[in-house]
Amino acid sequence: MAVPRAPCRIGDALCDIDTPALLVDLDKLEENLKTMPITLEKYSNLKLRPHAKSHKCPTLARLQVAHGAVGVCVQKLTEAEAMVNGGVSDVLVTNEIVTRSKLRRLMSLARHATVSIVADSLQNVRDLSEAARQMGVHIGVLVDVNVGMPRCGVLPGPEVVELASLINSLPNLTFKGLHCYQGANQHIRKAEERAGATAEAVEKAATALKALEDAKIKCDYVTGGGTGTYMYEASSGVFTEVQPGSYVFMDADYGRNFGEDGQPVHQFHQSLYVLATVQSVPEGNRAVVDAGLKAISMDSGVPLHLFLPFIHPILPQVYPDSDIVYHCGGDEHGVLVPPGTYKIGDQVWLIPGHCDPTVNLYDWLVGVRGGRVEAMWPITGRGPGV
Amino acid sequence: MAVPRAPCRIGDALCDIDTPALLVDLDKLEENLKTMPITLEKYSNLKLRPHAKSHKCPTLARLQVAHGAVGVCVQKLTEAEAMVNGGVSDVLVTNEIVTRSKLRRLMSLARHATVSIVADSLQNVRDLSEAARQMGVHIGVLVDVNVGMPRCGVLPGPEVVELASLINSLPNLTFKGLHCYQGANQHIRKAEERAGATAEAVEKAATALKALEDAKIKCDYVTGGGTGTYMYEASSGVFTEVQPGSYVFMDADYGRNFGEDGQPVHQFHQSLYVLATVQSVPEGNRAVVDAGLKAISMDSGVPLHLFLPFIHPILPQVYPDSDIVYHCGGDEHGVLVPPGTYKIGDQVWLIPGHCDPTVNLYDWLVGVRGGRVEAMWPITGRGPGV
Repeated sequence: MAVPRAPCRIGDALCDIDTPALLVDLDKLEENLKTMPITLEKYSNLKLRPHAKSHKCPTLARLQVAHGAVGVCVQKLTEAEAMVNGGVSDVLVTNEIVTRSKLRRLMSLARHATVSIVADSLQNVRDLSEAARQMGVHIGVLVDVNVGMPRCGVLPGPEVVELASLINSLPNLTFKGLHCYQGANQHIRKAEERAGATAEAVEKAATALKALEDAKIKCDYVTGGGTGTYMYEASSGVFTEVQPGSYVFMDADYGRNFGEDGQPVHQFHQSLYVLATVQSVPEGNRAVVDAGLKAISMDSGVPLHLFLPFIHPILPQVYPDSDIVYHCGGDEHGVLVPPGTYKIGDQVWLIPGHCDPTVNLYDWLVGVRGGRVEAMWPITGRGPGV
Repeated sequence: MAVPRAPCRIGDALCDIDTPALLVDLDKLEENLKTMPITLEKYSNLKLRPHAKSHKCPTLARLQVAHGAVGVCVQKLTEAEAMVNGGVSDVLVTNEIVTRSKLRRLMSLARHATVSIVADSLQNVRDLSEAARQMGVHIGVLVDVNVGMPRCGVLPGPEVVELASLINSLPNLTFKGLHCYQGANQHIRKAEERAGATAEAVEKAATALKALEDAKIKCDYVTGGGTGTYMYEASSGVFTEVQPGSYVFMDADYGRNFGEDGQPVHQFHQSLYVLATVQSVPEGNRAVVDAGLKAISMDSGVPLHLFLPFIHPILPQVYPDSDIVYHCGGDEHGVLVPPGTYKIGDQVWLIPGHCDPTVNLYDWLVGVRGGRVEAMWPITGRGPGV
């Protein structure tokens, strides 16, 4: 197996980075890392457990822990393995793990870190107990509650009680709490509507809590919320932990969300870019860059092109230039229309439409500051999540 | 850097494969490998140079060479490196390489294999010559002609002559021929319309050839065509080489093309699958599988769900079951509606909408036959193409 090629070396100037490359502006990233816990200070006892599905990078996860996070969430077992192997000591898998082989891997991981998992079926809970028993480990299990997104999870009601009771009754398991995440709410554009939709999810979480209370099952842990809504979960009085992930990077889609002040969300800065290179400026009012579907996920729209008002060595303040629009040119190309003053060999900065699946395409996250490559972090959790 | 986790071991039963996994049915793959050259037999002197952008896997490229291909095309320098390092001795890069660092890499590669490249600007040709000279290698350069797709390439006419003349005049370069690929034509549904659109591309290629002939520049090499149209380029009398790539795997999108007989194309068999696992069957008429955007590219539509009429150990004949439809459930999930008889832990077979960017998400191609894992081929050309 070939080790993936690195796009640059530490100390390189930006112009020496081979493209397409995934860049993170370290100054902006650090601001985001600092800002998040500050926004949570006013909520007593509220914990921050960022979702590592956004970055899949244990180095970044450790930075989040250094900035006050209690640990991270992950969506895939491979991500959990990357995090634990990369030095994160508390990992919550916010997804069902069901096969024998993967249960064995999960329990092996629980020997090396505090690992917890969600479940939404009685059979899965039994399998978790058996796998934990065989491996001689103890694992915390959350009930995965469907709070409005038609995916996994049980409806808030008797099923929650049934699952929690079973978890508490079986060896090697502890009922840890409720997982109540509503992903679709994150991308509702208007703050008011986002708050309203989150209130509905909070109500469902409260219903589930009430059912447990009526059944005299102790539950002091409710986790959920993302970058778009975490402030509402945080202030709900129901949630005890929030899971924002994208805030470290942001993306063009989150850039289309509006805050309470009616302005585009400005709390967190865009720190993630795909660096591309102009490879052709043919006749016909366009420039072609070397980044297409294999370099940028376009599920939430095409990337935004950035206008750079001045050139490095200091990484410039960048902002979208609405005059030049990126069009998908297939798997390996992007087409900029109009071409502006671009010439062959010029580098182009793009803001991905959706950070998570874009990061997933890369093996290296290149940290830049002051016009130089300062860090290269392997994205060891990348992949389909096998 | 972590070595990507393998989803299985050779000899494993299908039910023991960790998912999501990228599977290739070796029987079907071998049929496709054999069929392609047979369809080209009637055209004398026509060469087959499959496009490796579809599979990015040198093992598969070597199989193509063993089945009569003269070498492969690639779209990215990283793919070229993967192919040459993986034992392919003749590689055509069908894309512009423009930066100093990448030109150096390209010329280094040309020391170890026959490498040729396309160009569409005078400056790039000069840079290619200089880079080849510095490395002490000789490289064949094709003029990249825009035959109807608004991406790279020069228009058929004087620019072709200008570029070919410059290539011939500069040290360490040889003018090798014309690259005339029209990607969009591949996906025109009706055979008649696909043939008509290809005739237009062929006419443009002929115009470029005529311009060279008028300028007394020898050109005996015209390459292009994909899985959807190669038969038309092959029979044109203008093209001397075709570049189909997807035929080895096929995908749901190519499955929507109709052949000359008005039937869905049946010359090549679907051999590529994403194997997923049902992780949840919650209330609400759905089953949730562990494969979303990070496991299947959805740029050409969602994957098709397959109904398996009987269970292994023999890999069953599979066909789409129109009753169960896959819906994207985000980055890590797919939602099957209705759930049919699926229960938690069941494996689900999916035909990707678009093979190339789906393969790009995986590190391993798992070859299966007779209900067992027979081969595991690393996809060493995977990645954004840095």
